[in-house]
Amino acid sequence: MATTITLKRTGDKVPRSECAEIVYKALKAGYRLLDGAGDYGNEIEAGEGLARAIKEGIVKREDVFITSKLWNTFHEKQRAKDIARHQLELWGIDYFDLYLIHFPISLEYVEPSAKYPPEWWGLDGAPHPTKVPIQETWTAMEELADEGIAKNIGVSNFQGSILIDLFRYARIEPQVLQVELHPYLTQESLVALSKTLGIAVTAYSSLGPQSWLELGMHTKTPGLLTHDTVTSIAKTHSRSSAQILLRWAVQQGLAVIPKSSNHDRLLQNLQVTDFSLSEEETKALSALNINYRLNDPQTIHPALGIFA
Amino acid sequence: MATTITLKRTGDKVPRSECAEIVYKALKAGYRLLDGAGDYGNEIEAGEGLARAIKEGIVKREDVFITSKLWNTFHEKQRAKDIARHQLELWGIDYFDLYLIHFPISLEYVEPSAKYPPEWWGLDGAPHPTKVPIQETWTAMEELADEGIAKNIGVSNFQGSILIDLFRYARIEPQVLQVELHPYLTQESLVALSKTLGIAVTAYSSLGPQSWLELGMHTKTPGLLTHDTVTSIAKTHSRSSAQILLRWAVQQGLAVIPKSSNHDRLLQNLQVTDFSLSEEETKALSALNINYRLNDPQTIHPALGIFA
Repeated sequence: MATTITLKRTGDKVPRSECAEIVYKALKAGYRLLDGAGDYGNEIEAGEGLARAIKEGIVKREDVFITSKLWNTFHEKQRAKDIARHQLELWGIDYFDLYLIHFPISLEYVEPSAKYPPEWWGLDGAPHPTKVPIQETWTAMEELADEGIAKNIGVSNFQGSILIDLFRYARIEPQVLQVELHPYLTQESLVALSKTLGIAVTAYSSLGPQSWLELGMHTKTPGLLTHDTVTSIAKTHSRSSAQILLRWAVQQGLAVIPKSSNHDRLLQNLQVTDFSLSEEETKALSALNINYRLNDPQTIHPALGIFA
Repeated sequence: MATTITLKRTGDKVPRSECAEIVYKALKAGYRLLDGAGDYGNEIEAGEGLARAIKEGIVKREDVFITSKLWNTFHEKQRAKDIARHQLELWGIDYFDLYLIHFPISLEYVEPSAKYPPEWWGLDGAPHPTKVPIQETWTAMEELADEGIAKNIGVSNFQGSILIDLFRYARIEPQVLQVELHPYLTQESLVALSKTLGIAVTAYSSLGPQSWLELGMHTKTPGLLTHDTVTSIAKTHSRSSAQILLRWAVQQGLAVIPKSSNHDRLLQNLQVTDFSLSEEETKALSALNINYRLNDPQTIHPALGIFA
């Protein structure tokens, strides 16, 4: 599961124009999971990179695991089903391997012809939460699974109670939970809960605040990549800090989806299964936990307090 | 809202046999809100104390605001409705002023004749989560409101996403959210969310780990009542530490439900509306926040990770 790359836009300095090239090169380098989302605004370009790799015989479609996500403005049942098909068209493929509810947040519909992706705000510049229960959206997800549009379905940014509640009414249980998870936000409770529920966990922002720091955000917390604890463990193993952080996650049974626009680092990030961290090293990394969350929609508006 | 008392059992050194007396004395001293729950196992005794106060003309039923809570084993719609009526019988009253879902957790039904209150475990000694969605339970709560069994309905121990989701499908919106909240767990995000949702917040465990320390639990964290920051502010105002902690909550618009089996402290706890904390003092207390949660069902079983 380390042969994965996220196509995330937030904190991404890669222009959309380079996305096709990055996806193509990643596949050529051995990456086999592409983690995308409607919100990342690069589905056409990602699909182009994939198409080129398929055309050149580097991969077949069935060799690649493609994840996408349903955006907040499409939580109503029919809209969810429609946009998933639209997203497939943008990618130029006929199924997703995994389709996730991006956030347990429903926002007013924005016509894709007016703005796509619509991000967090209506056309008036303000966020507009609406009252679509998660159960309605999950029913749409289940039908997408029934129809083969999504081979697997799951959720992202769900925590404790709302995840437990989903398992109560789900006809098809979610297979994957994708959440922010790194040594500053270790989420032991959520991982333990996920284990009892039988849902696989994918960690995002594995490298910590790095890409946010580059955006000028979260500047008060030192980056994980340059943290003494991380760099000293990296030195011991003659590995990069990124490899240490990815190994820390992978070794505890989590999937990871690192991103790099630098091809050398992209290759490095694949090499995390040929060494192990000692129990002491793992503990030292986990001890960095300060429940520090980088991606919290409540910073946009108090009504979006899904982690409150 | 400071004239309230909780009848909580956890960490309560008051034998059930004294509950009637405490309730009676509290009402006599001016308390007007009784915060009970099926789980506290003292509804008969609380009702006896109330009956005595009514009989002696100290209060009329309509002067007292009585809160009770639905326990986890009664989340199925008909069971919820049945047990609420049964709880009224135990109290000897014909309506609750407020009835709350105690936890967003549903557990297997335990026949009251076999064990009441059933606490967290089945008769085999293990916890058994079941799949009753919160929406089903909320429908029961709404019907209890329709029928006048509960004048107001609300929830307890709900956080972010599950609270937001409840507001999406609620025909009758919850009026009160009761959660653990004190300077070690300030819950700013949840309070901000509650404000946008228009739900009143009641803080429980206002005095911090005290009653848990007495049980030999949470001994690693110093009590709030003896914390330097609290005692020095108490000294400035010539008040007790408890009064400072209650004032800190009340001053930010929260309701409080302190408990004391000591009559003098019970009287003291009422006196929190005749002085104010400065902005600096409020900030100093809030700065004690360490996201330290005393009451987390996940300590019983990982599957109960509602705060994960």
